[in-house]
Amino acid sequence: MTDTRARLVDVTRDLVHAATYADVSVGDVCAAAGVNKGSLYHFFPSKQALGMAVLERNWELVRGLLDEAFDAEAPPLDRLDRFLAAYRAMMRAMRERFGAVPGCPLGNLASEVSAQDPQMRARLAEILAAWTERVALVVRDAQARGDVDPTLDPTAAARGVVACVQGLTVLAKADDDPAVLDTLPLLARRLLPAPPA
Amino acid sequence: MTDTRARLVDVTRDLVHAATYADVSVGDVCAAAGVNKGSLYHFFPSKQALGMAVLERNWELVRGLLDEAFDAEAPPLDRLDRFLAAYRAMMRAMRERFGAVPGCPLGNLASEVSAQDPQMRARLAEILAAWTERVALVVRDAQARGDVDPTLDPTAAARGVVACVQGLTVLAKADDDPAVLDTLPLLARRLLPAPPA
Repeated sequence: MTDTRARLVDVTRDLVHAATYADVSVGDVCAAAGVNKGSLYHFFPSKQALGMAVLERNWELVRGLLDEAFDAEAPPLDRLDRFLAAYRAMMRAMRERFGAVPGCPLGNLASEVSAQDPQMRARLAEILAAWTERVALVVRDAQARGDVDPTLDPTAAARGVVACVQGLTVLAKADDDPAVLDTLPLLARRLLPAPPA
Repeated sequence: MTDTRARLVDVTRDLVHAATYADVSVGDVCAAAGVNKGSLYHFFPSKQALGMAVLERNWELVRGLLDEAFDAEAPPLDRLDRFLAAYRAMMRAMRERFGAVPGCPLGNLASEVSAQDPQMRARLAEILAAWTERVALVVRDAQARGDVDPTLDPTAAARGVVACVQGLTVLAKADDDPAVLDTLPLLARRLLPAPPA
């Protein structure tokens, strides 16, 4: 039963990635998963419930990249570079799998559903704030070591970095070229300048 | 006749802004515009043709903001600030009109259709490259005056600024708060640092 639930979420994620959330119907998910509608509605009473589960799974995956990069024994800005490298590797892997740069799993949904679905929007805002807060911790560590200008507001600076990740991903998607993301580490360093000499 | 064409494009833009491109059918457009399908198909043989016209109209509007800000008699980085102020004013006005931050008219479409529609993706890539090139001209002017580090690649630096605009707009949409964009001028300055002393 739990396997069916997880499979429905994974199938939905793939369908949404290859198209958009609006394009994917409950019927599409049932057909792709080989599950009847009764079973799906047992786990997810609505398409929105399924959408919320996709959101959580997407965040779990990005959070996994953040955990792995940020828990490493390395100077703070190197840990940020590790995350940016892992994110870029994820984009390249997704392009291999889907045949086109599908964009950020969280940014895509934020862009698509926020103006229409207050519940999904609110959860996306929480998730993006949590992502930003993770980066802000790195900024604080870097400031404590004297690697980053101590007058920067850590959360605002971190939001700039996350915005750059999101925006450059949109440009990479429009160009269908993951290499657009290669300047991310350089841009992140400019957004987190060293203390004035 | 030309009025009908322009009206169909404007009605479609509003419907897409309030929802998504996938959510809007040719029938929805006809109903909202008070036009029958025959008339619509006279101007637009397919939904994609209508989508391409919406794209052009959205670019025309953003290009208008760029023209107005960048043709001003002012130092280059002040011209960039003028554009960022005009963009933020547009987002606030769109929020008033639609009841929620609808996102960037071009970034939304890039995020939604790029992985599915090669023709729209190619045109979006051109438009975003043209936007970036406009910003790159400002960067070059600023470098010539000694306001920006001359070792920066102007196009790559400009792409960082456009990415920041796009990404912060995604975060503003998720937060449904245009004030998220208020840090744009500060972030743009960090992405375009002064020459080393």
